[in-house]
Amino acid sequence: MRDYSALLSEIEIEIQSHLQAGHVASYIPELGAEPLGGFAMALVDAQGQLHQSGSAQKPFSIQSISKLFTLALVLKELGPSLWEKVGREPSGSAFNSLLHLEYEDGRPRNPFINAGALVVTDLLMGLFPDPQETILSCVRQLSGNPHVDINQAVAHSEKEFGFRNASLANFLKSFGRLDQQVERVLEIYFWQCALEMSVVDLAQAGTFLMNQGVPLGGSDRFITSNRAKYLNSLMLTCGTYDSVGDFAYRVGLPAKSGVGGGILAVMPGEFSVAVWSPGLDPSGNSLVGTLALEELTTKTGLSVF
Amino acid sequence: MRDYSALLSEIEIEIQSHLQAGHVASYIPELGAEPLGGFAMALVDAQGQLHQSGSAQKPFSIQSISKLFTLALVLKELGPSLWEKVGREPSGSAFNSLLHLEYEDGRPRNPFINAGALVVTDLLMGLFPDPQETILSCVRQLSGNPHVDINQAVAHSEKEFGFRNASLANFLKSFGRLDQQVERVLEIYFWQCALEMSVVDLAQAGTFLMNQGVPLGGSDRFITSNRAKYLNSLMLTCGTYDSVGDFAYRVGLPAKSGVGGGILAVMPGEFSVAVWSPGLDPSGNSLVGTLALEELTTKTGLSVF
Amino acid sequence: MRDYSALLSEIEIEIQSHLQAGHVASYIPELGAEPLGGFAMALVDAQGQLHQSGSAQKPFSIQSISKLFTLALVLKELGPSLWEKVGREPSGSAFNSLLHLEYEDGRPRNPFINAGALVVTDLLMGLFPDPQETILSCVRQLSGNPHVDINQAVAHSEKEFGFRNASLANFLKSFGRLDQQVERVLEIYFWQCALEMSVVDLAQAGTFLMNQGVPLGGSDRFITSNRAKYLNSLMLTCGTYDSVGDFAYRVGLPAKSGVGGGILAVMPGEFSVAVWSPGLDPSGNSLVGTLALEELTTKTGLSVF
Amino acid sequence: MRDYSALLSEIEIEIQSHLQAGHVASYIPELGAEPLGGFAMALVDAQGQLHQSGSAQKPFSIQSISKLFTLALVLKELGPSLWEKVGREPSGSAFNSLLHLEYEDGRPRNPFINAGALVVTDLLMGLFPDPQETILSCVRQLSGNPHVDINQAVAHSEKEFGFRNASLANFLKSFGRLDQQVERVLEIYFWQCALEMSVVDLAQAGTFLMNQGVPLGGSDRFITSNRAKYLNSLMLTCGTYDSVGDFAYRVGLPAKSGVGGGILAVMPGEFSVAVWSPGLDPSGNSLVGTLALEELTTKTGLSVF
Repeated sequence: MRDYSALLSEIEIEIQSHLQAGHVASYIPELGAEPLGGFAMALVDAQGQLHQSGSAQKPFSIQSISKLFTLALVLKELGPSLWEKVGREPSGSAFNSLLHLEYEDGRPRNPFINAGALVVTDLLMGLFPDPQETILSCVRQLSGNPHVDINQAVAHSEKEFGFRNASLANFLKSFGRLDQQVERVLEIYFWQCALEMSVVDLAQAGTFLMNQGVPLGGSDRFITSNRAKYLNSLMLTCGTYDSVGDFAYRVGLPAKSGVGGGILAVMPGEFSVAVWSPGLDPSGNSLVGTLALEELTTKTGLSVF
Repeated sequence: MRDYSALLSEIEIEIQSHLQAGHVASYIPELGAEPLGGFAMALVDAQGQLHQSGSAQKPFSIQSISKLFTLALVLKELGPSLWEKVGREPSGSAFNSLLHLEYEDGRPRNPFINAGALVVTDLLMGLFPDPQETILSCVRQLSGNPHVDINQAVAHSEKEFGFRNASLANFLKSFGRLDQQVERVLEIYFWQCALEMSVVDLAQAGTFLMNQGVPLGGSDRFITSNRAKYLNSLMLTCGTYDSVGDFAYRVGLPAKSGVGGGILAVMPGEFSVAVWSPGLDPSGNSLVGTLALEELTTKTGLSVF
Repeated sequence: MRDYSALLSEIEIEIQSHLQAGHVASYIPELGAEPLGGFAMALVDAQGQLHQSGSAQKPFSIQSISKLFTLALVLKELGPSLWEKVGREPSGSAFNSLLHLEYEDGRPRNPFINAGALVVTDLLMGLFPDPQETILSCVRQLSGNPHVDINQAVAHSEKEFGFRNASLANFLKSFGRLDQQVERVLEIYFWQCALEMSVVDLAQAGTFLMNQGVPLGGSDRFITSNRAKYLNSLMLTCGTYDSVGDFAYRVGLPAKSGVGGGILAVMPGEFSVAVWSPGLDPSGNSLVGTLALEELTTKTGLSVF
Repeated sequence: MRDYSALLSEIEIEIQSHLQAGHVASYIPELGAEPLGGFAMALVDAQGQLHQSGSAQKPFSIQSISKLFTLALVLKELGPSLWEKVGREPSGSAFNSLLHLEYEDGRPRNPFINAGALVVTDLLMGLFPDPQETILSCVRQLSGNPHVDINQAVAHSEKEFGFRNASLANFLKSFGRLDQQVERVLEIYFWQCALEMSVVDLAQAGTFLMNQGVPLGGSDRFITSNRAKYLNSLMLTCGTYDSVGDFAYRVGLPAKSGVGGGILAVMPGEFSVAVWSPGLDPSGNSLVGTLALEELTTKTGLSVF
């Protein structure tokens, strides 16, 4: 059996020299104010054992990683009919691009680009009377942490500076791709991006993806085994902005990243791992986070390939 | 001297068989309710004489033709520095496309596509304390008709169904291309599109373009001779949606069209002419209006080419 | 009556300070070797009188201006059925772009972008048994200069370095848009680009466009009055690469430019004018040539607007 | 231990009802003449045991699957410096698209789209004096079948009808992305697409990918363990034309497909599998082949996710 705790300590040492690289997201003041240099990593292994390094208990803004949880909630409810509303192909364009939408009748390429996530949020709002409560109780239950919450200042800033997302939502609405009111969809979308979780919360919340739909640690099945696999395949082909090929090549794990510097990744049957470091590479993925995961799969020899 | 009155009567007869062709704009109920079959034409010649046929006194929704007046007001005030904010090239894409914007840092290709017109409206709002009053008094003075006004129901519907324009405005804002608040820019933009004028009003309002910047009929110079020429060149290369090449080929006059079925065209030194018929061709130009203008330039042998 | 000779002398003086601006075309050695600083201008007025300044008798590589003559030849022969094969809208993209082709089933936007000119050349080859002889005798007759010829070294270099055009031709062929063999179409196309004419030759050759299809100086009608107008409208909306809007705004004349530094422009009923200066602006139009034409229309107050 | 032979028999029965679906590739006569209805499947398990069903010994045109072997040869030789020449991101566009190339300075998105494969072929030609011999001896050795060969008629037809690829190659050359002569690169490229192998040959040839770079059955290591993983990640994110997301979702295995109806897929540590059926889905992947692989991963519960 691998000593993941020792491994995480090793990795923490190796990434030190890179901690000043990259740039923090700057489109909202709250993210822009985060200094470079932070790092945290947590891994839950197949026995449900938690391993951690760095500021592993510190909550950070999970941003687009939230798209994974809303997608899971909608997929669980709707099943494959979800794919009538949104595709599942890599977009080949930036996460906030409108290019494909214009040529493809407003149907987003996949649920992880912003346009697709807005459609997923719209669907969620049609399925659950109190979507915010639904999302919150889902992430609290999956993470086992009843204190997970959103950051109101971030939610407010997302809205304040969210012109590109407002543009996307109105664009989708003009194609008839949203059922709910534009302002309301944006509100829920901005709200979900403001969720704060620690790497420990995230790694725990990801265990259902490594364990065929059943969270480790006693909870009931969250989704079916097949749908857990589907989510993993979507993460691998679409989960890390427009560098999914590079990420698959280097890391080789299904993963979902956020511009807050977090990445959640899973090795089916082996582990669920979350990493955080706020400096981003040009694609918007955590630079040190990607490095740390690359080290992890290199050292263990474990990757889906 | 040409007998334009007889000519307009001839043209009215010739276009009869086409009056049921095309489709009325349907994106707002007010335009969608207009039956096919209507026709009006008015021409002011170089002597200031008015010639008309059809329902020439009936006001209709001028829609995008309003972009010509707001552009003239801003060009008059800002001069060439306007072109730092918006280009003057044909877009090669649909009037409401976001494609070029994404690749060109949010700078609209020209002031007649919706994105460009939103920027012009934004500039107008920065220049004039009461932009609606400014626009209204301008079109009243140019047309010599103090009763020109907007249609409140149309303005309201534009807003109600204006998701694509809201998308464009938010997109521009995300690139820092609008100084004013998005909602306010959209409000003024939708308001100006709801202006109602008759072909007589429009033909009279266009005389400054055929007469080197000075309206016929006693008013003072509106803009300089050079700027009148500039507006004509912009109309010819960008004024008729994505069929400017076809329109120049067939009609050969600078013109600005609107999805309400109106077209204003000018032959410098010779005439200002307005035509209305609600059936649109696939590009959004009045089908019969274009035909009528084609007849006019064929019969008179007058075109800029 | 205007003293065009004096005017051309004035213009020649005014442009002196700009003669070192811009860059010569460098994709083939023959054009790249031309030093900055050259200038020539020639104008044939409505009485058929020739006016000139600079090195007006010196032949230069007319490059894309040749597209005007091949288009005229094919339009003359085929009439409007030509437009089934090629559009007549500004492309909104660079002259050698493949973007629109891919989305629009291989149909070129207009006959002046390279793709459209390749289709026109293909059509010409289907219409005339010896297309090179046809082109050569056409430009010799229109210019009144039996010594007009091609530059073999340029024709050879065009082929040597013509990968982008070879790409376009193969692309068109893959969509079934060329009837002739790809290699043969490219050969004729490269050959026609290598035509050499002086500004005097060009200004004379353009008189049919200013005079309703009939060349000044005794020749028979070349094409119908209507088709001369059509060519003028195509020049104005598509003739100067991707700055047609800017060119129409500043110069206000139908024109066709070439990367050899030449521009042929016409003011219907008034004059045909050719200018040459090898320094190009970023769009590929002669920088000083455009300036000289701008001066001409400003000083005379003559433009189509 | 799984009874793969029984499984393949089951799958063969289940796919029968779909054998008339899809369309065979029709761009060359040789592929167009293949009737619907054919099927073959072969699997080599971790013990090196071969299992087969259908016409498993019948050679077919492997087409784009050949890109995997040329890529492996070049990656083996050049290592990561290969990625300076070609990207490793899904393109989001059709396999023969030129769109991204134009915006991205001629650098292909990945080695499996045609543009990228042409660059790989160009590199191979620079590395090996007799590239055809190199490719042939590689696939013969990997498959263990010394009789693997190309189909001359197919190679000839590829060239005869390969205008789109000729367009791509000239486009790449115009951006300086090919070192060798365009005609020669195309010749080798068309030649490699004409390779014929059976599913048994392919499944055997793929064993190095499931076994960390070492072919099963006694051969020496072909490439390093890491590079085998890299190839698998590239197959998963870019290997099945523009439906990689859908393929990952349904099948969940790294795979490379060809328009001849073949697909080679691997489950690292478990099996290498090849399937053939000529009817293609709209993306160009074998319709029944994809179904058969989906059945395989569903029945075994084995996929990388």
